[in-house]
Amino acid sequence: MLLMKRTERVGAIIKILSENPNRLYSLGYFCDLFQSAKSSISEDIQSAKSILEGIDLGLIETTAGAGGGVKLIPYISDTEAEKTLNQLCEKLRDKNRILGSGFLYTSDLMFDSNITKRAGEIFARRFINLGADYVVTIETKGIPVALMTAHMLNLPLVVIRRESKISEGSTVSINYFSGSAERIQKMSISKRAVTPGSKAIIIDDFMRAGGSVKGVSDMLAEFDIEIVGTGVVIASMEPQKKKISDYFPLIYLGSVDENEKSIEVFPNSLIFYKKNL
Amino acid sequence: MLLMKRTERVGAIIKILSENPNRLYSLGYFCDLFQSAKSSISEDIQSAKSILEGIDLGLIETTAGAGGGVKLIPYISDTEAEKTLNQLCEKLRDKNRILGSGFLYTSDLMFDSNITKRAGEIFARRFINLGADYVVTIETKGIPVALMTAHMLNLPLVVIRRESKISEGSTVSINYFSGSAERIQKMSISKRAVTPGSKAIIIDDFMRAGGSVKGVSDMLAEFDIEIVGTGVVIASMEPQKKKISDYFPLIYLGSVDENEKSIEVFPNSLIFYKKNL
Repeated sequence: MLLMKRTERVGAIIKILSENPNRLYSLGYFCDLFQSAKSSISEDIQSAKSILEGIDLGLIETTAGAGGGVKLIPYISDTEAEKTLNQLCEKLRDKNRILGSGFLYTSDLMFDSNITKRAGEIFARRFINLGADYVVTIETKGIPVALMTAHMLNLPLVVIRRESKISEGSTVSINYFSGSAERIQKMSISKRAVTPGSKAIIIDDFMRAGGSVKGVSDMLAEFDIEIVGTGVVIASMEPQKKKISDYFPLIYLGSVDENEKSIEVFPNSLIFYKKNL
Repeated sequence: MLLMKRTERVGAIIKILSENPNRLYSLGYFCDLFQSAKSSISEDIQSAKSILEGIDLGLIETTAGAGGGVKLIPYISDTEAEKTLNQLCEKLRDKNRILGSGFLYTSDLMFDSNITKRAGEIFARRFINLGADYVVTIETKGIPVALMTAHMLNLPLVVIRRESKISEGSTVSINYFSGSAERIQKMSISKRAVTPGSKAIIIDDFMRAGGSVKGVSDMLAEFDIEIVGTGVVIASMEPQKKKISDYFPLIYLGSVDENEKSIEVFPNSLIFYKKNL
């Protein structure tokens, strides 16, 4: 693949880095790809960097030395994050989502690749500097947003199952009380999926009292795994007292009034202040 | 967001289109974003197009007229597809994956965002011209690859659940025989998730006899939904006779010998010929 023009190399570098966030590429990788000298590639990367920064579309980080290289730091601007959450709130306010018993239909949103990608970008920006080894979620509706977060952070995704499956090999299970389901539920993790002593970020679609997240946290504690961050797309305002204290919601869900057909949702405004990120 | 230089606008166009495959952007969108004239933006798009095509990294399609605009057609080159599948086969041959009863541990691969993104690109290239309205999968391990396929095609993802959940609203369920689980299983779909008379692509992680896919197909038939394509990451060679005839596997799984600790896997070589795509 031989490229002559600088513009072409810069365009290709932007595409490759954008599609593979938080992954370190050596200068040599691009030298081989474009059959160009290191000095040219260094200049190309500088161009790519100033292009993306100038338009608020991402941050390219370069590190010098033997193990060094270049990577794209996943980034979503405050403006884009705010726009995403306002759009999501608007969709959530649709009264046709009311299912009864305070439940809302959200599957279309939680399985939407564009919404979950944006949410994953927000979580990635929030959690990038915590040294996590993987992203953990519990099946099913949290998988897309957890996958997108893992992709942005270039981390493996571990999915905790409800039932232990033969295809998971040897598993560890616990029972926990789910406030959403109003009953005791079970969760299982494959022993192969995690390494004792590592660090995890938990990502889920919804939190009511925090029973599921607490369950995940307890189960990971069996493997001596530390939870360094917890992100949920929607957190219910009630109960105010959750089973876990440290979590980062994108959206708060207040009252759902079946008679008035009203749904109270609002974005977590704290995410818009850079100091909190 | 005011940009002066052509290079910067071209870089930004490449990033925006790459991150939002198969989505049509009007010229006006970029005119507003860059505060530039239509004639400049047209030239920028031509530059972006020749950059990506020149390096086998994607196809930019422009359509003229009132409803026209520009979009990135998801694309993975034959070389990249072959490399992806060979790497995946190599990972699958790891004898530590053998779980007994012919089962292999594949969760780490099926939840890997990079592998599933590549697989999604291959499925998208295969299925892009079939006029599908959504991608459908059945929980759990097929969700990541189905989500990535849906993202590349800019289609909604519909996830069929094992149990009907209160949060899915009104559902339709069927029972079917799963050869993998060796028992009758249930699947449920939310009535809100699909529109009668539409077209769907089914994507799943694994197919043995095809019972699950047949089940999905039967259930969608209740809604008068036509299956226009079926893609699976891994198809088992046995049984040779499947419950469905038309499917597109990325990888074939032959014998798994627990005593010899050998796993026979090979890529579906047909995907490497453009005429078949």
